[in-house]
Amino acid sequence: MSTKQKYDIGEQSLTFPNPVYLISGASVVGKKEGEGPLGSAFDMICEDDKFGEDTWEQAESTLQKEALSLAMGKAGLKPEDIRYLFAGDLLGQNIATSFGLMDYEIPLFGLYGACSTAGESLSLASMCVGAGYAKTVAALTSSHFASAEKQFRFPLEYANQRPVSATWTVTGSGAFLLSGKRGTVRITGITTGKIVDMGIKDSMNMGAAMAPAAADVIAQNLEDFGRKPTDYDKIVTGDLGYIGQEILINLLKQKKIDISGVHEDCGILIYDKDKQGTGSGGSGCGCSAVTLSAHYLPALKDGSLKRILFVPTGALLSTVSFNEGQNVPGIAHAVVLEYAGEEA
Amino acid sequence: MSTKQKYDIGEQSLTFPNPVYLISGASVVGKKEGEGPLGSAFDMICEDDKFGEDTWEQAESTLQKEALSLAMGKAGLKPEDIRYLFAGDLLGQNIATSFGLMDYEIPLFGLYGACSTAGESLSLASMCVGAGYAKTVAALTSSHFASAEKQFRFPLEYANQRPVSATWTVTGSGAFLLSGKRGTVRITGITTGKIVDMGIKDSMNMGAAMAPAAADVIAQNLEDFGRKPTDYDKIVTGDLGYIGQEILINLLKQKKIDISGVHEDCGILIYDKDKQGTGSGGSGCGCSAVTLSAHYLPALKDGSLKRILFVPTGALLSTVSFNEGQNVPGIAHAVVLEYAGEEA
Repeated sequence: MSTKQKYDIGEQSLTFPNPVYLISGASVVGKKEGEGPLGSAFDMICEDDKFGEDTWEQAESTLQKEALSLAMGKAGLKPEDIRYLFAGDLLGQNIATSFGLMDYEIPLFGLYGACSTAGESLSLASMCVGAGYAKTVAALTSSHFASAEKQFRFPLEYANQRPVSATWTVTGSGAFLLSGKRGTVRITGITTGKIVDMGIKDSMNMGAAMAPAAADVIAQNLEDFGRKPTDYDKIVTGDLGYIGQEILINLLKQKKIDISGVHEDCGILIYDKDKQGTGSGGSGCGCSAVTLSAHYLPALKDGSLKRILFVPTGALLSTVSFNEGQNVPGIAHAVVLEYAGEEA
Repeated sequence: MSTKQKYDIGEQSLTFPNPVYLISGASVVGKKEGEGPLGSAFDMICEDDKFGEDTWEQAESTLQKEALSLAMGKAGLKPEDIRYLFAGDLLGQNIATSFGLMDYEIPLFGLYGACSTAGESLSLASMCVGAGYAKTVAALTSSHFASAEKQFRFPLEYANQRPVSATWTVTGSGAFLLSGKRGTVRITGITTGKIVDMGIKDSMNMGAAMAPAAADVIAQNLEDFGRKPTDYDKIVTGDLGYIGQEILINLLKQKKIDISGVHEDCGILIYDKDKQGTGSGGSGCGCSAVTLSAHYLPALKDGSLKRILFVPTGALLSTVSFNEGQNVPGIAHAVVLEYAGEEA
């Protein structure tokens, strides 16, 4: 007997046997993000980027803890109502997640997809709820400028200069609750990405490293679901920045796909590059997560956006792989979010 | 309308709407593992621990690549037959996985659960196949003694001494294919672990850090499924080693659960501690994965084992969290494997 697959669509996409709703989202950010164009939309802005903790890593843990707490509060739910956590961050061995979420005592699936983790966590959480495995689960991710600089580049104390192609890691965490219970925003499908390596070796130009993976998964999503770019009100990448956006649009044009009219990038939206000195734009696991929660979710809730393709993008490297001369491959995971109409 | 959950069992466990079979497993190990008690059971032993590569990290990537290739070969499948990879390793930013699996061009969910990742990957892969999302998926993990020592402790060149409580990271990768297609070994349930922190601060005593998490998830599995320890032919932890085993058995005795008659630990089985100088036993993502593939899977296939509880165990730390004085919390994920009878 072979199990019949009814939910796999095309090459890399899925729908779900039961409806999946995104019933709550919350965003917690640092001072700089609070001063940016989306500042007024975030749920919590902390003036102290250490969040009252002793280390940057503990600060990042606190971001996740607070974001999940807010998301639960908005939905009127408690930790015991959440069956699973799907969570990750950028730090070696996912320590922001481990130390941030421990106290909730909720079964945890730890994830790593670099800055694509917001898409990976929403994908796996959707698969879980959509299968009827759990009533409510949480998907969350974080990044922190200072812990990421320390992990990937130079300690802040060095005050080294940054090339203009460099992105600025967002200090922030976005948490989402997914449920089978009817809400106004529905996740109707996912397209899971492959690793794409185009030979980029410059860790200060992540946009270029990630754009090919974004192009790949967006093209595949459109093909699998039989859609054209304008079937989405927005196609939203995670953190390509200005340089990556241009590469993405050009790569897709080579495939006769024009997304220029509907494309937006969370890394471009989150900072004012002229006033804030943020180079090519924002980046990090937290970038796409807080922008989805603060900026796109309200528009999906009130129906001013009907359908978006959310595509967090990740650059797969570590200081070890970089120092050993390896390329920086990319990966991206796409999630289809739709306005589901007024709640009954 | 609320989605009815039919597959969640008790507090932390799941069964699946469609049967899930483990149709193929493969193990690739290094020289030392090949000289150990399980040596003759591994599919591939490499005399050169660099596997012909320039760096330890690339060697670990090669382990994963070879293990997946062997698992596919045994099942007569090709990369295009595999819908998803669920994979991870111990290195910062999962680089062994990213660089090892890139060439297969299969959609990837990157995972991090420290040494529990073998359990996490089998759990998520089972959930995926069990929901009917995919016909065949792969779950795989790896570790490498030299890349792990460099990552977590000291470069090998320092030749520093190790306390007897220290475990020895296994050089190895285990890959598994899960499918809805009838096989002789079936995955009938999972119990997903929470992070458990008992205040251990010694990164050279991982067994003590992980044992409480193993005790927690084993007790929960027995409660959720209404079983006693002897309902399993074996309860197999990942890499507690001698010290962790004793702690585990005692912790469960305090809960009136006696697993001493059925408990085995992959970290104890894989080396001869007297002849091989491996301290408290083997550890690492690869330890439980290669032992499951080489030692337990054949016995489940021929029915000499009818049902086992496989419980890979992880210690959640990084050099950063350790140096900042954080504890070493643990996590463990349990998977129920059963003999499913002869194939029709």
